[in-house]
Amino acid sequence: MQTNNTLENLIESLKCLPGVGPKSALRLAYYLLQRDRKGAHKLASSIEESLNKLGHCKLCNNFSEKEICSICASPNRISDTLCVVEMPTDLLMLEQTRSYKGMYFVLMGRLSPLDGIGPKEIHINKLLERIKKSEINEIILATNFTTEGNTTAQYIAELLKESKINITRIARGLPMGGEIEYVDSGTLAQSIVERKKII
Amino acid sequence: MQTNNTLENLIESLKCLPGVGPKSALRLAYYLLQRDRKGAHKLASSIEESLNKLGHCKLCNNFSEKEICSICASPNRISDTLCVVEMPTDLLMLEQTRSYKGMYFVLMGRLSPLDGIGPKEIHINKLLERIKKSEINEIILATNFTTEGNTTAQYIAELLKESKINITRIARGLPMGGEIEYVDSGTLAQSIVERKKII
Repeated sequence: MQTNNTLENLIESLKCLPGVGPKSALRLAYYLLQRDRKGAHKLASSIEESLNKLGHCKLCNNFSEKEICSICASPNRISDTLCVVEMPTDLLMLEQTRSYKGMYFVLMGRLSPLDGIGPKEIHINKLLERIKKSEINEIILATNFTTEGNTTAQYIAELLKESKINITRIARGLPMGGEIEYVDSGTLAQSIVERKKII
Repeated sequence: MQTNNTLENLIESLKCLPGVGPKSALRLAYYLLQRDRKGAHKLASSIEESLNKLGHCKLCNNFSEKEICSICASPNRISDTLCVVEMPTDLLMLEQTRSYKGMYFVLMGRLSPLDGIGPKEIHINKLLERIKKSEINEIILATNFTTEGNTTAQYIAELLKESKINITRIARGLPMGGEIEYVDSGTLAQSIVERKKII
């Protein structure tokens, strides 16, 4: 069997990527070495650069090169509304809708006791401090509608029960273009319970 | 929209990996930054190290840290048999069978004119030089049984037609544990055409 330490190190390191097992790691390694050496160089240097440069925004906890990220620093955002999301990707999705102009807080996770993720891991203290920093009128809980996401929202709502802040949760219901025939019964039940007066 | 150049660079670089699109790149980037910073450091340095250290073996064309790889340098291998494979992964698979003790030549690809891969790209000249270097008695063509793999095998066989070397092709037929009921008709037809006398 051919032993090749450098190559084996590379394969081992590639396995740190989520969803990459021994076979995929091998394939990725050969690809980087053979097909895309330029891309591989760029990848190595941008990983290092990101690790060195990117920290967390002091206000919203999202990844940022500066102490305060561009959203938190923007004077055009509504500063009394705070949207709490699980991950930076969720923030990006919300930004893409262009329908929200308030501030954000990124938990960088969700409560999941079985995985050892408690309030400390999702930066609850930083969230509470953030709320104290400026006058917040409404907190929109935009965690996922999964068990963990719901628990996280519930936990944060409980913590802020005594404050005078309005705590809201993003709406559940049928998706755009959703057909009643094909939607799951849980969603349909919710959309009946949470029905809205239109006239 | 939050612009963040370092992060965008990382996402862009991750897209060089095969099968990684914009969404996966984003997920991988966040994973590396948040969950596995140590793994990310290791990944960056092993990519760089591999790119710097790994070259091609002068004899078999496989990736190697040294001029001659460990298989080609081994005194325990049968030096007059040469197995031609498409990719280093194929070599690894053959080695794992422990049923082949000869030498290898890795084409690092297969003939595929539509993708612009001709004889030059699969190092045919290096193969011909390799054959001249030591006395080769048999060349086993172990390219895949795909259209490209078959064409590559055919092409190499044609080139060596005039030489006195035995040119063989790995066997086709039912796989181990294969059931006639479930095997595709092409394979079954081949296994009848290439049937073997057993007594």
